[in-house]
Amino acid sequence: MPEMRRDPVVGRWVIIDSEHLKGPSDFPKEDNTPTRQAVCPFCPGREYQTPAEVDAVRPMSSQANTSGWQVRTVPNKFPVLSSEGTIEKEGRGIYDQMTGIGAHEVLIEGPDHDKNLTELTKEEMQLVISQYQSRFRKLSSDSRFKYVVIFKNFGSSAGATVEHPHSQIIALPMVPKTVLEELKGAEHYHQYRGRCVFCDMISQEYQDKERIIVENNSFLAFCPYAPRYAFETWIIPKGHSADFASTDEATQAQLAQILQDVLKKFKKVLGNPAYNYYLHTAPIGHANLACYHWHIEIIPKLTRSVGFEWGTGLHIVPTFPQEAARYLREA
Amino acid sequence: MPEMRRDPVVGRWVIIDSEHLKGPSDFPKEDNTPTRQAVCPFCPGREYQTPAEVDAVRPMSSQANTSGWQVRTVPNKFPVLSSEGTIEKEGRGIYDQMTGIGAHEVLIEGPDHDKNLTELTKEEMQLVISQYQSRFRKLSSDSRFKYVVIFKNFGSSAGATVEHPHSQIIALPMVPKTVLEELKGAEHYHQYRGRCVFCDMISQEYQDKERIIVENNSFLAFCPYAPRYAFETWIIPKGHSADFASTDEATQAQLAQILQDVLKKFKKVLGNPAYNYYLHTAPIGHANLACYHWHIEIIPKLTRSVGFEWGTGLHIVPTFPQEAARYLREA
Repeated sequence: MPEMRRDPVVGRWVIIDSEHLKGPSDFPKEDNTPTRQAVCPFCPGREYQTPAEVDAVRPMSSQANTSGWQVRTVPNKFPVLSSEGTIEKEGRGIYDQMTGIGAHEVLIEGPDHDKNLTELTKEEMQLVISQYQSRFRKLSSDSRFKYVVIFKNFGSSAGATVEHPHSQIIALPMVPKTVLEELKGAEHYHQYRGRCVFCDMISQEYQDKERIIVENNSFLAFCPYAPRYAFETWIIPKGHSADFASTDEATQAQLAQILQDVLKKFKKVLGNPAYNYYLHTAPIGHANLACYHWHIEIIPKLTRSVGFEWGTGLHIVPTFPQEAARYLREA
Repeated sequence: MPEMRRDPVVGRWVIIDSEHLKGPSDFPKEDNTPTRQAVCPFCPGREYQTPAEVDAVRPMSSQANTSGWQVRTVPNKFPVLSSEGTIEKEGRGIYDQMTGIGAHEVLIEGPDHDKNLTELTKEEMQLVISQYQSRFRKLSSDSRFKYVVIFKNFGSSAGATVEHPHSQIIALPMVPKTVLEELKGAEHYHQYRGRCVFCDMISQEYQDKERIIVENNSFLAFCPYAPRYAFETWIIPKGHSADFASTDEATQAQLAQILQDVLKKFKKVLGNPAYNYYLHTAPIGHANLACYHWHIEIIPKLTRSVGFEWGTGLHIVPTFPQEAARYLREA
C-alpha cells in the first residue's frame, strides 16, 4: 500500500511509492569526477577571466585578482539579476512587474579544480562556510535586498555549467516563494502551539531515531519525514536559530564538518551523484523570528521531475526516508 | 535589465533573463519520433499485456481487451496509488500520514504506435478529449477522491517511459498543492474584486494581444505573462467555467482542435520537443466556483530545473512570453 505523508511546515503531501521502492543501486550512476581542467576560468592564473573579485581569502601579501587565494568570490559573468539600478515597480493592467535588481555571485570553493567539497581539508571546508557567511552579511546590508540565497549545483545534471568547485549566491528584492511558504506554515504552527515547528521536528526526529543520519554538537542531519526526493537530506542547527548570519565561528566549524560528512556519505552510498543544496534562513531584518529555523536542504539528483509533479506539486518518492537515512548512517 | 514578473493568480514572481535571451534555435533539439514498435504493450494485439481495460471506444461488435479499439483506458500496471482500500489517516507525533488510495490510469490515445497527437485526425483527437472527460466523470463519482489530474508526458526527457502515445489520469484523496494555491489566489482576488482572475486575465490578453498564439470559438491559447518555463502555453475556455467535466461535446471538439493546433506549432517551432501538459480544474464537488476557471498548462521540456529553482520556487526564464507567442503564432 503506497503511503502519503505530509510535511508539517508547509503542509505538502508526498506519495511514498512503496510498491516500487528503490535503493541506492537502483538509480543510474553518474561520474561527476572533474575532467576539463585545461580551459577553466576559475583556476588560479586565470583570474582575469572572471569579473573582479568582491571577496577572497588570500595572504596579506597577495594582490586581488591574482593567484594565491584559498576561497574567492566574484560577480557571476552571466548574472540573472542586475546589481546596478533601483527597484522600480509597475502595474501593467492586471499584471505586476519590477526591475530585476539583485546580486549574483560565484563563490569559488578552492584553487584546486579537482578537489570537491568532499576532498577539502577541515580548514578549507571551514573557509567555504565562513565565506558563505561573510557574503551573506555583506549582501544583507544592501537596502534593496530582502533575501539572500546561498546554493550549490554539483554535476552537470544538477545544473553546474562550470566544473571547478563553486557555489552561488543570489540576493533578491523579494522573499522567494518556498521560503514564504515555510514562513507562513511556521507562523501558523507557532500561533496555536507557541513553539517552533522545526524545533518540534528535531524533538520528533530524536524520538523516532530512524531518520537521523549523523549529528555533532551543533547540528543534526536527517532525511525528512515527507521528502520530495529520494535521499533528500536536511541539516539543521539543534538549538533554535532563525538566522544563518548570526552563527559564530565555532558553529560554522561544526556546520563545515557535518556538511562535508553528509556529502562524503552521499558519495559512498550513491556513487558521486550530482546534487543541489540551498540554505533557507529568515528574510533580511527578521533575524530573531521565534517561529523560523534556518537549515540546509540537500537533494541528490537521482530522478527527474515530470509533468505530474509540476502540475500538482505532489512528489512521488521511490525511497522511504528511514531507508535512505539507514544507508547514509551506516556508510 | 532583467525583468521580474508576477503571476496574478498565485503571486509567483519569475525572472525573465533578458540579458541572455533564447529563441527556438538556442535550445538543444531532441528527436522524439517513435522507434521501438516491436515490444510495445500498448499496441493492438497485446491487450493481454496491460491490466483489463476500464473504458474504450471500440465497435459494438468487438470484445473488451481485444484489438479494434480507437482509444483505450487501462489501470496503470505500476500505479503510484492503490485503488483498493479505504483512506486511513493517522498522526505520528507531529507528522501526518494517510494510506495512498487513488486511481492511476493510462489512456492509450490510439492504436497506431507512430501517430502522436499531432498526427491524429480531427475525429481521433476528439475521441481522446471525450475519453478524458468520461474518465474524469467516472473517477469523480468515487467518494474517496477529491481531485482528478489528467496529464501527458511526451518524450523520454519529459518522463514518458512507454513510447506509444498515451496520457495518464490520477485520482487523488486530496486537492494537490498547485491547485490549492490557484484556488486560494483566485478566491482572494474574487473577494475584493468580485471577478474571476482568469476571466480578467483573458480580457488583459485580448487588450495586450502580444501573448496570444491562437484562438477558436471557445478557447484561447496564449503564453502567460509570468511563465515558469520558456514557451509555456496555457489553453483556457473564453467563457467562465470552473469545471472541465461540464464541457459539452461541441466544446470538447473545440478543445481537441486548439490543443492539436498548439502541439503542431510546438513541433514546427521547436522541433518535436518533449513536453508535459496537465489539466487544472475545480476540485470534485466544486463545479460552480465563481472564482476558478479550468485550463490546460503545456510545458515544452527545453531547459531543466536546477537547485536555485527548487530552493526558491523562483524560475529563471530565458524567453519573453511575447516572443514565444510570436514564434508560435506565426508558425
